[in-house]
Amino acid sequence: MNIEIINTGSELMFGLVLNTHQQWLCRQLTDAGYTVSRQTAVPDTGPAIQQIVREALARAEFVIVTGGLGPTSDDLTRDLIAALLGKKLHTDEAILTRLKDFFAQRGRTMPEHTHVQAQVPDGALVLPNPNGTAPGLAMKVSPNPFRPDGKTGWLVMLPGPPRELKPMFTDHVLPLLRQKFPLASTFICRTIRTTGIGESIVEEKIAAPLKPLTDAGLELGYCAHYGEVDVRLVARGADAEKSAAAAEAIIREQLGTHVFGTQDDQLNAVIVRLLTERKETLALAESCTGGYVANRITDVPGASAVFLGGLVTYSNEAKQNLLGVSAETLAEHGAVSAATAREMAEGARKRMGSDYALAITGIAGPGGGTETKPVGTVFIALATARHTFVLNPVNRFDRPTFKQITCQQALELLRRTLVKH
Amino acid sequence: MNIEIINTGSELMFGLVLNTHQQWLCRQLTDAGYTVSRQTAVPDTGPAIQQIVREALARAEFVIVTGGLGPTSDDLTRDLIAALLGKKLHTDEAILTRLKDFFAQRGRTMPEHTHVQAQVPDGALVLPNPNGTAPGLAMKVSPNPFRPDGKTGWLVMLPGPPRELKPMFTDHVLPLLRQKFPLASTFICRTIRTTGIGESIVEEKIAAPLKPLTDAGLELGYCAHYGEVDVRLVARGADAEKSAAAAEAIIREQLGTHVFGTQDDQLNAVIVRLLTERKETLALAESCTGGYVANRITDVPGASAVFLGGLVTYSNEAKQNLLGVSAETLAEHGAVSAATAREMAEGARKRMGSDYALAITGIAGPGGGTETKPVGTVFIALATARHTFVLNPVNRFDRPTFKQITCQQALELLRRTLVKH
Repeated sequence: MNIEIINTGSELMFGLVLNTHQQWLCRQLTDAGYTVSRQTAVPDTGPAIQQIVREALARAEFVIVTGGLGPTSDDLTRDLIAALLGKKLHTDEAILTRLKDFFAQRGRTMPEHTHVQAQVPDGALVLPNPNGTAPGLAMKVSPNPFRPDGKTGWLVMLPGPPRELKPMFTDHVLPLLRQKFPLASTFICRTIRTTGIGESIVEEKIAAPLKPLTDAGLELGYCAHYGEVDVRLVARGADAEKSAAAAEAIIREQLGTHVFGTQDDQLNAVIVRLLTERKETLALAESCTGGYVANRITDVPGASAVFLGGLVTYSNEAKQNLLGVSAETLAEHGAVSAATAREMAEGARKRMGSDYALAITGIAGPGGGTETKPVGTVFIALATARHTFVLNPVNRFDRPTFKQITCQQALELLRRTLVKH
Repeated sequence: MNIEIINTGSELMFGLVLNTHQQWLCRQLTDAGYTVSRQTAVPDTGPAIQQIVREALARAEFVIVTGGLGPTSDDLTRDLIAALLGKKLHTDEAILTRLKDFFAQRGRTMPEHTHVQAQVPDGALVLPNPNGTAPGLAMKVSPNPFRPDGKTGWLVMLPGPPRELKPMFTDHVLPLLRQKFPLASTFICRTIRTTGIGESIVEEKIAAPLKPLTDAGLELGYCAHYGEVDVRLVARGADAEKSAAAAEAIIREQLGTHVFGTQDDQLNAVIVRLLTERKETLALAESCTGGYVANRITDVPGASAVFLGGLVTYSNEAKQNLLGVSAETLAEHGAVSAATAREMAEGARKRMGSDYALAITGIAGPGGGTETKPVGTVFIALATARHTFVLNPVNRFDRPTFKQITCQQALELLRRTLVKH
């Protein structure tokens, strides 16, 4: 069974927005045991949308189209697909009443063009939208005119805004998919997440021990991110669970503490979990990462139980006043130095009364580098009750990448320290 | 002329990673005057890659394929495309030497499988990769066997890692594209960015005044993000610059201070620019946004000139010790209150010695809500020399969206205050 996702919007072609729907929809489908065979994005012009829907219905039994259901003049998906499938549009009075209520409740007059959102192709299922104005639509295409075998297909149209699309997908599209296309066999996709080791080395360590399983049908994939390598296992059939579990055990044995989690585990969540289990607390003092690490930690629900607070000390004055870094240290070693990082971490730990404190000082760039301290120079300090550790990587990247990688190194320093003690 | 982008990788189909290449490549091409007609992502299996390359070469004159050039066993793009186009692979000695040097310089032995990255299809151009091991490849497809007219196409293969792909695209692919497909006529794509106004209202205000221009061929599009609506103008031909300028003037007149920038302008960069021009400074005190606002401000190069520092005060103790919020205020009104937000902002302004201070306290959720202060309750305070302003929106969203929208509101409060004075 094939599923295809089509995202419409000229803003995607112009590179004005990031297409996050693809990942989100694919992840939901994967977790439910379905696999997407293709993702396509096209401009919101008539010929492009009709052409890709025609092609997708010829290949896939379930096609999801996003975008173009809104109230403005470039929202054409509903009309174009109805025309392609030879369906007339009618006004759905229930939707129209809801639209009028939506605006009335907000004390606003309904803009005239909003009416088009109550138009429904004959025979389509209406998917309610409690979070916006445009309802979704599901159409059974039977017989399917774009397949030689005429096999029935389903075409689902979803609104573009994420907070409208997501609940609509979960509450209506997934149940429809499960009802129309029940799963034939078990499918497991498991990701083992590692850090501090390169992609080639990971493969060298695990490929041979896993060979009996891959020979028997287990699929193995690798994906490198900043400072992380994911190993992906795909197993199918009656033995899927057993095969995936055996593979995971081998990978954990081979890679040891390089494995920091599975599936969607993030280093920030792993750290919050480790600290919560140990009833220990963290404080942060950031210069060049400018709040990135605090933001990552507080992205984790429940972080407030272990994260006492953070200081973003961009200026020397802030480093002195808020963290107690000494004027002598700053004068002698500079703001970007092991000595300053150490005093920042120890100052943050003391002032916040935390068990651990991470401090980061460096030169993110593009400006500010010197001959002895080029752009990318970083000092990361971790203060604990017994010792203060200092790392000195050189991260020569663009500004956002610099923040990401530096944060990853700081969190990994803390994680290793936590799992060792 | 048609350009298509193909991203390969089963991790995309499983929703394990976000496809950021699409946006980046499309944006670069748009800025250079080219338009992408379709983006496709497929799994890294042989049939899927060969099928989409065949289709894309039948439709487009320039096809960019990303991913699958690495050293592991699921990196098949090079081999599959060579086979599809009937080309043999040979070992490129210059690449092999570079690979060996790459590992030698890092004091590592070259893993055996890395050799495949020195394989080049006969007749292909090699695109150097100073940031990694896999070089890119460009192949002239002439005559093009997938088009009835046999018209020459170009197929470019780029490595997946962003910091390898990006410079390779800029330094080698764009010059190749410009040389082989020089632009026929002027093309302008301009985005006018607005905030604090809905998509329908934007269209109601500007569509009629712009009608003479749109009737004459100007294309108009709308794109709503969190708290922002972009208006996109596309103009072509000899009058493109004049037409786009006239349209922008009309939009600015109709929307006034709702317009905060153009093109890639971000609210954070606008604020750093405004503060820099006025030689004024900012401090931050964040509770529920947990460093998100500080991170956004410090994403802007040069932020250090205007941003003195930020405090992430998750605990009540930190609010008292670091910001001087009074115990009475916390006891009487609670940590999430207008009074606490006000004292946080005024405390941050005083302790950091800044001209402005933004403070944010609220309940991000999913836990922590009460009957009188449900999840999503936020207080945003802006302290200035003359007055402290407090906003009290209710942002009922998931945790990451909550942070984004709350940050947007805080930055917009500051921007409006700056442009009014």
